[in-house]
Amino acid sequence: MQILENGSVTSPRGFTAAAVAAEIKYTGRTDLAIVYSKVPAQAAAVYTLNRFKAAPLRETEENISNGVAQAIVVNSGIANAGMGAEGMRLAREMSDCAAEALDIAKDDVIVASTGVIGMPLPMDRVKAGVQKAAKALYPDGGHDAAKAIMTTDTVCKEMAVQLRIDGKLVTIGAMAKGSGMIHPNMATMLGFITTDVNIDNKALQAAFKANIDDSFNMVSVDGDTSTTDMVAILANGQAGNTLLTEGSPDFPAFKQALREICIEMAQKIAGDGEGATKLVECTVTGAATKEDARLAAKAIIASSLVKTAIYGNDANWGRIACAAGYSGAQFDPDKVNIFIGDVQVAQNGMGLEFDEAKATETLKQKKVNILVKFNIGTEEATAWGCDLTYDYVSINADYRS
Amino acid sequence: MQILENGSVTSPRGFTAAAVAAEIKYTGRTDLAIVYSKVPAQAAAVYTLNRFKAAPLRETEENISNGVAQAIVVNSGIANAGMGAEGMRLAREMSDCAAEALDIAKDDVIVASTGVIGMPLPMDRVKAGVQKAAKALYPDGGHDAAKAIMTTDTVCKEMAVQLRIDGKLVTIGAMAKGSGMIHPNMATMLGFITTDVNIDNKALQAAFKANIDDSFNMVSVDGDTSTTDMVAILANGQAGNTLLTEGSPDFPAFKQALREICIEMAQKIAGDGEGATKLVECTVTGAATKEDARLAAKAIIASSLVKTAIYGNDANWGRIACAAGYSGAQFDPDKVNIFIGDVQVAQNGMGLEFDEAKATETLKQKKVNILVKFNIGTEEATAWGCDLTYDYVSINADYRS
Repeated sequence: MQILENGSVTSPRGFTAAAVAAEIKYTGRTDLAIVYSKVPAQAAAVYTLNRFKAAPLRETEENISNGVAQAIVVNSGIANAGMGAEGMRLAREMSDCAAEALDIAKDDVIVASTGVIGMPLPMDRVKAGVQKAAKALYPDGGHDAAKAIMTTDTVCKEMAVQLRIDGKLVTIGAMAKGSGMIHPNMATMLGFITTDVNIDNKALQAAFKANIDDSFNMVSVDGDTSTTDMVAILANGQAGNTLLTEGSPDFPAFKQALREICIEMAQKIAGDGEGATKLVECTVTGAATKEDARLAAKAIIASSLVKTAIYGNDANWGRIACAAGYSGAQFDPDKVNIFIGDVQVAQNGMGLEFDEAKATETLKQKKVNILVKFNIGTEEATAWGCDLTYDYVSINADYRS
Repeated sequence: MQILENGSVTSPRGFTAAAVAAEIKYTGRTDLAIVYSKVPAQAAAVYTLNRFKAAPLRETEENISNGVAQAIVVNSGIANAGMGAEGMRLAREMSDCAAEALDIAKDDVIVASTGVIGMPLPMDRVKAGVQKAAKALYPDGGHDAAKAIMTTDTVCKEMAVQLRIDGKLVTIGAMAKGSGMIHPNMATMLGFITTDVNIDNKALQAAFKANIDDSFNMVSVDGDTSTTDMVAILANGQAGNTLLTEGSPDFPAFKQALREICIEMAQKIAGDGEGATKLVECTVTGAATKEDARLAAKAIIASSLVKTAIYGNDANWGRIACAAGYSGAQFDPDKVNIFIGDVQVAQNGMGLEFDEAKATETLKQKKVNILVKFNIGTEEATAWGCDLTYDYVSINADYRS
């Protein structure tokens, strides 16, 4: 597998995109994007588990219940969340407008919004923007789209990878937005993956959902999951490979490539947390079950005490152990070993003498790795997050913007 | 029920206490306390659910498995946690030393420690302190004890209430330590309740555990629960009332008084959070189950986004709704009403126009009340916490002390 330079959601064959400044809420920047496949594509999506599931997610879920979509329309600035039945109406109107402008089936649209909640979408501007974007689609439009969906992101998040499936070149592209911390307006985690692989829907769902569980769903910050989180994938078959099914010899290679791109994107999100200065990665190994490993890794990553310790360059193993201890994971406290980078800081559940200077140096890096070994099984999991800083408080104590 | 002025753990009949400066870790202040009952008492305790259960808790659990105790010995400065088998040995030595110095049964001692983890207790100093305290017990020693157990607390937490049971005056006293946020060294939440009521162990357990669930266990901060949290109760019968059982006509009155004292103490803990400027109380009503109400109330209280909004005097209903949404509680998003103080900020899951100035004024108070109505049932729960401020980051990003 190869990572492409300047990869984006339009790197795979048969995808075009465009972004416009619809002036939905922001001025002086683009805020609406369309990603389009020349042919209908196999589609799958995962949605927030928050009970307040925003309108665009419900609309999308309905649209792609048949497993097919041909376009993504996303706006930033206003999330179309907290709007009740009115919100559903607006999401449908936005979706229908895109279908009409692109001359595709009404239910072949994935619709998403991100931004302030509780405000209505100004549909006249949205529709004007959709119509304009629909006429501006071009094969290198991926980067424009990735920029248009940003809210509190400080960096644009996109990439693409390539691999050979059945002798054919297959490309997977991705764009995402969302910070490691959720913005006051619930900036939302949105991810869109495009690929030209020829695959059946069942295999796509299988590859996609497992990978989401190990990537986007392992970005754990302050425990918050917004009303609008969604990750969707479109596979349009334009690479021309023999149809991939779960039994195909090349299916594992595709699944692995998808996994790597999802993990890369998850790291980009985790590291762009509000006020964050560091990406934090925590791996738990030797657990009895996968769920135990996940619970512990996420609890450690989400712990305010661990996050502040990392901000303060403090090799505080006790806080890491404590977080594992309340995570709900089953383990034997007397067998736990903890490492910060290469420095072992705890053995058999107790502190060790260690090289403080080396540990502090490790903690000052832009990426900090924590390893917790449970030593009672073979399951493992990795979670990503960021440090907790003064800037987080500053950003989030400000008045609603 | 009446709240006593200057109440403490020695307010009930037959209890004495003393505190000494054993110089276990702190200098220039007291750090070890004994609370003693002239006769063996009915005992009950609840312990942390953290898998790293510190040695003193395990020792106490063993000692009072027969439902009887006669003394509490507590030290601050060193938690005797993260010490493995060595820690168990030290906890036992501390417990045995107290039993000997007080001339009581070996297993009639409740032992607790709070402070730095991963350091051994200096047993020579502990034993010298225990022996000195055992000789200094006096009927007004409760306040001294409450001070000796403080670690990062900014205020001493104690109180006592009185009521009539079976025509007799019954007193319940309490002391606690622990801040709304858990200190770098896992300051621990410790609570000790003394009463002279005459009660059987089964009734005591029943009254105690239910009340702990609605008070100390509803203090939710950053989700962290330390390795050393414990709340214990001693009931020595010295009030001379007819033995209370679960069927006694006065049992509900006793249970209610215990409830109120536990809730008061929980609020004191929640409001003394690191860096906290406000106590936050969140009540969820109209839930289908008690568990749903608890989950939602705790998630709201523990949410970094809600906590920073409160710090910033921001009436941000969206963050409150979002926290309820990921809490795991079952509810209908379209029926949720949210109030900040008396100001309604959301109805049927959507924002309302509201008096911003009034809401901001409410948020500037030392105690902020959030009310969330689920409107689908009759169960309710209340949780307590505090705001998230720059000082929290400052305190917790400092190097391990």
